[in-house]
Amino acid sequence: MRPVRAVLVKNTSSVTDVWSSAMAVGLEPATELAPVPGIRIGTIAAGIRRPGRLDLTLFELAPGSRTAAVFTRNQFCAAPVTVARHHLAGMPPRGLVINTGYANAGTGDAGEEDAVACCRAAAAALGCRAEEVLPFSTGIIGARLPNDRILAALPQAASVLAEDHWLDASRAIMTTDTVPKGISRVVRGGVMPVTITGIAKGSGMIEPNMATMLAFIATDADIPQALLQDLLKEVVAVSFNQITVDGDTSTNDACVLIATGRSGVPLKAILEPFRTALHAVCEGLAQALVRDAEGATKFVTVEVSGARTGDEARDVAYAIARSPLVKTALFAGDPNWGRMIAAAGRAAHKSLDTHAVSLRLNGVCVFRDGAMAPDYREEEGVAAMRLDEIHILLNLGAGRHGARVWTSDLSHEYVRINGEYRT
Amino acid sequence: MRPVRAVLVKNTSSVTDVWSSAMAVGLEPATELAPVPGIRIGTIAAGIRRPGRLDLTLFELAPGSRTAAVFTRNQFCAAPVTVARHHLAGMPPRGLVINTGYANAGTGDAGEEDAVACCRAAAAALGCRAEEVLPFSTGIIGARLPNDRILAALPQAASVLAEDHWLDASRAIMTTDTVPKGISRVVRGGVMPVTITGIAKGSGMIEPNMATMLAFIATDADIPQALLQDLLKEVVAVSFNQITVDGDTSTNDACVLIATGRSGVPLKAILEPFRTALHAVCEGLAQALVRDAEGATKFVTVEVSGARTGDEARDVAYAIARSPLVKTALFAGDPNWGRMIAAAGRAAHKSLDTHAVSLRLNGVCVFRDGAMAPDYREEEGVAAMRLDEIHILLNLGAGRHGARVWTSDLSHEYVRINGEYRT
Repeated sequence: MRPVRAVLVKNTSSVTDVWSSAMAVGLEPATELAPVPGIRIGTIAAGIRRPGRLDLTLFELAPGSRTAAVFTRNQFCAAPVTVARHHLAGMPPRGLVINTGYANAGTGDAGEEDAVACCRAAAAALGCRAEEVLPFSTGIIGARLPNDRILAALPQAASVLAEDHWLDASRAIMTTDTVPKGISRVVRGGVMPVTITGIAKGSGMIEPNMATMLAFIATDADIPQALLQDLLKEVVAVSFNQITVDGDTSTNDACVLIATGRSGVPLKAILEPFRTALHAVCEGLAQALVRDAEGATKFVTVEVSGARTGDEARDVAYAIARSPLVKTALFAGDPNWGRMIAAAGRAAHKSLDTHAVSLRLNGVCVFRDGAMAPDYREEEGVAAMRLDEIHILLNLGAGRHGARVWTSDLSHEYVRINGEYRT
Repeated sequence: MRPVRAVLVKNTSSVTDVWSSAMAVGLEPATELAPVPGIRIGTIAAGIRRPGRLDLTLFELAPGSRTAAVFTRNQFCAAPVTVARHHLAGMPPRGLVINTGYANAGTGDAGEEDAVACCRAAAAALGCRAEEVLPFSTGIIGARLPNDRILAALPQAASVLAEDHWLDASRAIMTTDTVPKGISRVVRGGVMPVTITGIAKGSGMIEPNMATMLAFIATDADIPQALLQDLLKEVVAVSFNQITVDGDTSTNDACVLIATGRSGVPLKAILEPFRTALHAVCEGLAQALVRDAEGATKFVTVEVSGARTGDEARDVAYAIARSPLVKTALFAGDPNWGRMIAAAGRAAHKSLDTHAVSLRLNGVCVFRDGAMAPDYREEEGVAAMRLDEIHILLNLGAGRHGARVWTSDLSHEYVRINGEYRT
């Protein structure tokens, strides 16, 4: 059930008052996350950008842990991304250091030196080498990290390392997120139960290819390095790379999957249930990012079927999901199928037989045979669009391929959040 | 000079009040448009969607006129686009019929019959064949045309045909436009002066490949058909196809160029000055569409240089121009170069040497050598962004290609205009 909407945004120039909300759509904060044997976490309020909030997180990975990661494809990747890629190519990581407040992006050579200095300090606190630490930053682009405060706080973070700090970490990595995001799953079938726990942050600049999001997922299954990387790529493609908030891809995104092997359960014993559980964790986290999108009042699934190729299906789904005209109509609860059809027509790869196309909004057929469905009544569409969760199902009637994208609406609150001066 | 901003949008949940404006950015309505010998225009208030406003326009083209046109590439093109393409392929047009209020898109076979019926009625009023009339519609998608009212009004529109009705027509084709858009140029150098007059409408769903815009341009130069079509394509590529408001491409767009030949001046005598003048008319109309974009408070030129290919330059320019994060920052007057750099990095085709990249906002260098420019002061950026016209100049430092795109900002007013229920 949807939490009560909290804030009335009264627009005096508007003919209607609109309700906005600072709450995520249908998303409750996690209350429990299962520890993963082999992973200890320390979080601390280092005063990086504002005093008194958790903003620095240290992960300690037990020896023998294997780590896979995917990073932003943005050509202006941030300094920590460059350093993390470099370190990951060298030796298995023993630690992660994550700060919020500043993204350490657009900071040039000095930024890379800052990221390396963070790794060095984290390594000293963890008792490993700097090259065994991966750095992650999220926050404002363009300003240097306040490394004096970060370096001073890292020993304190190390002093509170514990296995049961996942909830704290889900909070400590937040930026404009309004709800901490975390999911645990237990996989049975081996000699011991295996745990998967993941946390994520991100609520804007979200788009496939690792948008402004950080996700850290760990398991105590025993997974060979090559398989771990394959599993991560496979699951990211149908979770984090299937969401869009505003079409922007950040400079800092990363998704990390760690397998500590501490359960002693080899993956091949539980491969299929593990894959299903990993997918559930990543899909849940990805959807949570969209549910908590900046200013979101709706959670929207755009599903395209009947396309001639998978690429066409994805292009059409993204065209609808990204269209500001569609997104403002979603915000207004307006069953404006014309805008959806127009967005689809712009993105379709070849000419379409409009008589074969159909469109359903939360099950209500609004368009078929090249025109508004004859039995469609506007009241039905309005009622369907009043829900917080909207399912747009477009069948192109041209082939057998499909795609699915999750997105949010475009509200006054989005403009307010992103239109305010940086403070 | 900028017109005074008219409307205070007070957002009670916001920490700051923001000014919005229903006025176009730096755009005054045309007060005079030159007649084009061989073109007569009649406009009328047919009560198509609302009573008492000009909403139906009839063009009469003198015998011997040649007509070139480009249409939307949206695969769900509207019925009038289908009919106009078909008629244009058959015989030289003698008339145009243009209605606002309803787009006649997503209306299936019945919509095509309605468009043909309009042509038939216009032809009867003009004394030509239905196949010699091109139909154009703009407005709400998905509803049938009120053809009883349109057919009844066409004889009246024909009864007021006159050469000096261009200003009325610029008003009669408006939908959400706040300012009528029209430009005239006179080209000298032949035995007689030659006139070019154009009008256009459109303020949302605007994106290259003929977004929700209609443009009608006419000249009395004598231009062979093939050259006319080439000139139109050439000039559209660097005017109407160089703008974006919200990334959406409409189902109905069309740009028409008519040469009546009535001046008796063959084009080859004045080819270069004519091309320059035609470009000025189309560039001015295209910029007018952006200046009057829904909710726009800024007119923004995004210029990319130093790209490796023209495609890369265009992709980067459009990524910046379409980014909701960039557009909300522009609305706020925030010199948020990080968002611009991030958008560029997402769109660049290959890896970039960030040390070679530079970014200027209205001449103020904010980024170079891979980081914020050392001599940049935030006050300078804020002052630059306070202007109504913003020039974003990004040099990728990787090649010799460039591109330029005009766009607007993303304001509360945009969300309001597009988030209100259809009425």
